[in-house]
Amino acid sequence: MSKKLTKRSEDYSKWYNELVVKADLAENSAVRGCMVIKPYGYAIWEKMQAELDRMFKETGHENAYFPLFVPKSLFEAEEKNAEGFAKECAIVTHYRLQTDPDNPGKLRVDPNAKLEEELIVRPTSEAIIWNTYKGWIQSYRDLPLLINQWANVVRWEMRTRLFLRTAEFLWQEGHTAHATKKEALAESKQMQEVYATFAEEFMAMPVVKGSKTESERFAGADETYTIEALMQDGKALQAGTSHFLGQNFAKAFDVKYTSKEGKQEYVWATSWGVSTRLIGGLIMTHSDDAGLVLPPKLAPIQVVIVPIYKGEEQLENIATKMDVIVKELRKKGISVKFDGRDTFRPGAKFAEYELKGVPVRIAVGNRDLKNNTVEVARRDTFEKQTVSQDDVVTFVSDLLEEIQENLFQKALDFRSTHTTEVDTFDDFKKVIKTKGGFVLAHWDGTEETEDKIKELTKATIRCIPNEVVNEAGTCVFTGKSSSRRVLFAKAY
Amino acid sequence: MSKKLTKRSEDYSKWYNELVVKADLAENSAVRGCMVIKPYGYAIWEKMQAELDRMFKETGHENAYFPLFVPKSLFEAEEKNAEGFAKECAIVTHYRLQTDPDNPGKLRVDPNAKLEEELIVRPTSEAIIWNTYKGWIQSYRDLPLLINQWANVVRWEMRTRLFLRTAEFLWQEGHTAHATKKEALAESKQMQEVYATFAEEFMAMPVVKGSKTESERFAGADETYTIEALMQDGKALQAGTSHFLGQNFAKAFDVKYTSKEGKQEYVWATSWGVSTRLIGGLIMTHSDDAGLVLPPKLAPIQVVIVPIYKGEEQLENIATKMDVIVKELRKKGISVKFDGRDTFRPGAKFAEYELKGVPVRIAVGNRDLKNNTVEVARRDTFEKQTVSQDDVVTFVSDLLEEIQENLFQKALDFRSTHTTEVDTFDDFKKVIKTKGGFVLAHWDGTEETEDKIKELTKATIRCIPNEVVNEAGTCVFTGKSSSRRVLFAKAY
Repeated sequence: MSKKLTKRSEDYSKWYNELVVKADLAENSAVRGCMVIKPYGYAIWEKMQAELDRMFKETGHENAYFPLFVPKSLFEAEEKNAEGFAKECAIVTHYRLQTDPDNPGKLRVDPNAKLEEELIVRPTSEAIIWNTYKGWIQSYRDLPLLINQWANVVRWEMRTRLFLRTAEFLWQEGHTAHATKKEALAESKQMQEVYATFAEEFMAMPVVKGSKTESERFAGADETYTIEALMQDGKALQAGTSHFLGQNFAKAFDVKYTSKEGKQEYVWATSWGVSTRLIGGLIMTHSDDAGLVLPPKLAPIQVVIVPIYKGEEQLENIATKMDVIVKELRKKGISVKFDGRDTFRPGAKFAEYELKGVPVRIAVGNRDLKNNTVEVARRDTFEKQTVSQDDVVTFVSDLLEEIQENLFQKALDFRSTHTTEVDTFDDFKKVIKTKGGFVLAHWDGTEETEDKIKELTKATIRCIPNEVVNEAGTCVFTGKSSSRRVLFAKAY
Repeated sequence: MSKKLTKRSEDYSKWYNELVVKADLAENSAVRGCMVIKPYGYAIWEKMQAELDRMFKETGHENAYFPLFVPKSLFEAEEKNAEGFAKECAIVTHYRLQTDPDNPGKLRVDPNAKLEEELIVRPTSEAIIWNTYKGWIQSYRDLPLLINQWANVVRWEMRTRLFLRTAEFLWQEGHTAHATKKEALAESKQMQEVYATFAEEFMAMPVVKGSKTESERFAGADETYTIEALMQDGKALQAGTSHFLGQNFAKAFDVKYTSKEGKQEYVWATSWGVSTRLIGGLIMTHSDDAGLVLPPKLAPIQVVIVPIYKGEEQLENIATKMDVIVKELRKKGISVKFDGRDTFRPGAKFAEYELKGVPVRIAVGNRDLKNNTVEVARRDTFEKQTVSQDDVVTFVSDLLEEIQENLFQKALDFRSTHTTEVDTFDDFKKVIKTKGGFVLAHWDGTEETEDKIKELTKATIRCIPNEVVNEAGTCVFTGKSSSRRVLFAKAY
């Protein structure tokens, strides 16, 4: 706890890596690129899951579970999708170990236990799911099919970072089937909205909603809708995507339905997902040089009470008094921890909860007892205030809302000041290189230009924003005419 | 829906397999031995998860997440554990596919992407977790460490059955570390109690608590505590196990702590798990020839309301009236579905909800509206009753409790009449062969006798019950003296 965190201004990347470990969120494991999500980090994921799951169910989706493995012949059925993931697949080839005759006490792969067909550990589940949907969909009455799955997936990434890019990660993946193109499009846009609402209202992380360019689309999708957030180092984070898959998977897996008119039609599809990467986004949006800053709506502990005492009697008096307040706060649905440990001093506890981003800290000492007060400190601004014990429940309840709002506003302000419209390529390069952030610029719509800009600046088109004014202009790189600006940034 | 279910008396195993599929709980997938858990089946799992998770947290456990893969060198570290699972492991050997030069459009494993060290898909996570705990535990202050994980695991079983035995299954696995043997023993017994409470109070499935014999223990455990349930075909189902692991994993992974006295000591361990197998147990405990029977506490839909109407106006009148009742039931936390679909007749709906085991069905027609009544039918006994609309909310709420209680009592009665004390091996064979069920018999305590009995009768020692009267007797097979009876049965 005592070791100091690297400052963001010194080395943002180092700051992030240290923070994730020091705040007890996650750590690297013995398996290359795979992380261990520690209880405190997992508690944030549980809070995210609960809200997202509720939102999915409110929009008519049900959960199910599909196999971890995809037989190679199914995996390769939708060619673009297969091509997109082929280079980063964990592949199961054998199903048995045996004692190693050359190394007593050790095991080796049993060469006689080779699978006839290799199994791919799912990097995403379209293939196995659409192969299943074939059996579930016969008639228009079976549609829409609105299913979500909470699962682990594996993508053999070469450069990994805790939460942001790991070989195994946890996510949810929605997979829906519809009778018409219109319905499927509406579904994929609806889920983009759900993600945006979640990001902004719960994570307090403002996002730009838009569509991906063809080269940035999900492999196998006709359209990818995305939400893009801006981190404090001026880099963008793709926080969630929702894909309109057209009839690509229906055709690859021959999934047809009989329409009301008795005709055989291919089904239309969507898929959409967010992952434990969101935790990385949450950290990088709000946290500071003192540690994690968590929005109250996703904080595993919203309020911590630290008694400042000498001797057991004082502790007991404080605990008795605080017990009433703890119960009242909990009655309001607020999660509270009373930290009466005698193995740590108040100062160490303050530092610990600062590092762990607990939104509100209440300190109470012997003098407070006499004055019927407590000291309330907020994590986002470090402001402290003395509050009467009679008012503290209402005060804290209001304060949590205020912190949630303040974090969003602060992130929104940061994004506003770090979104720049540029009209020349010199300015483009300069802004990307020095100021960073989002750059709104005209683009001629060609993949060639997109690639060139990426090559020269490392900035990519994050999205074609949903909400953008049509505006005549010229491509920042080629000078060709363009009707709207798109959003560029360097990205995670 | 119209296709009839095989009767239990005709072919119990066929009845089970058909029921799982027809009630929309699960189905086999394209991956050998792996199942797809359909939304209705998954909803039962979610209910189970919610209750168990609450019980784990109430007993001080936190959730975390550890990698899916176990490097071979870690996997083999605890030799007994490794030996126990080596023969049924899915093994990842490669991390990339490439286009197959011999088959255009197809992929093959890239021979240049062979892993230096093979990865085992976790069949259980002791190895990867204890390798992690080594970094988390230094001092007695770090203990106890009380962690649970919700995850998928893979065991390459040769003969699989939906829910009961699948190559991939979902489960939770608790892994705890303690300073003393006493604490670890108390923890493993506590979790056996938690499982028993869950089985009896939520699943309405009576269980016998006991310890496993050495030959039936978890590989790597010093003691395995189990809960054993009896299915309607007279076979036992091991429903949950809690292991006292001694210092086996601490020694294999060199996990020591500094005691209060400053000494270096090995840590004591437990692990405990229940899986989607519980759904198989739930089905086989209560269901009948008409389909699934679900205890109200785990039923995704507790009450279904089926309107019986001619024309839209009648439907609307019924719907309006029922809407009030639906809302009142929901206010009491009861999950209700109003099925107003016009694509199915009431008879078909009745059959569907019977098959799906919805505990209470309310039917309401035009005459009911006039009489201010509804018809309430219970799934467990098929009894119907006409109830005034004014009383229906209280009536249904009480009825759900009664059904829960009745299912447990019925299962308990079945178990009582199917638990037989025998004192000769002839009787033993006869009971196992004809009547089935649990057999309480004396055993001389040797593995040899246990094996012989298994070979001759297929019955195994399910457990040495916790609650058994000490009683002098002689081994049912060898005639040697014995001080207590143990529980035998054929088992899933």
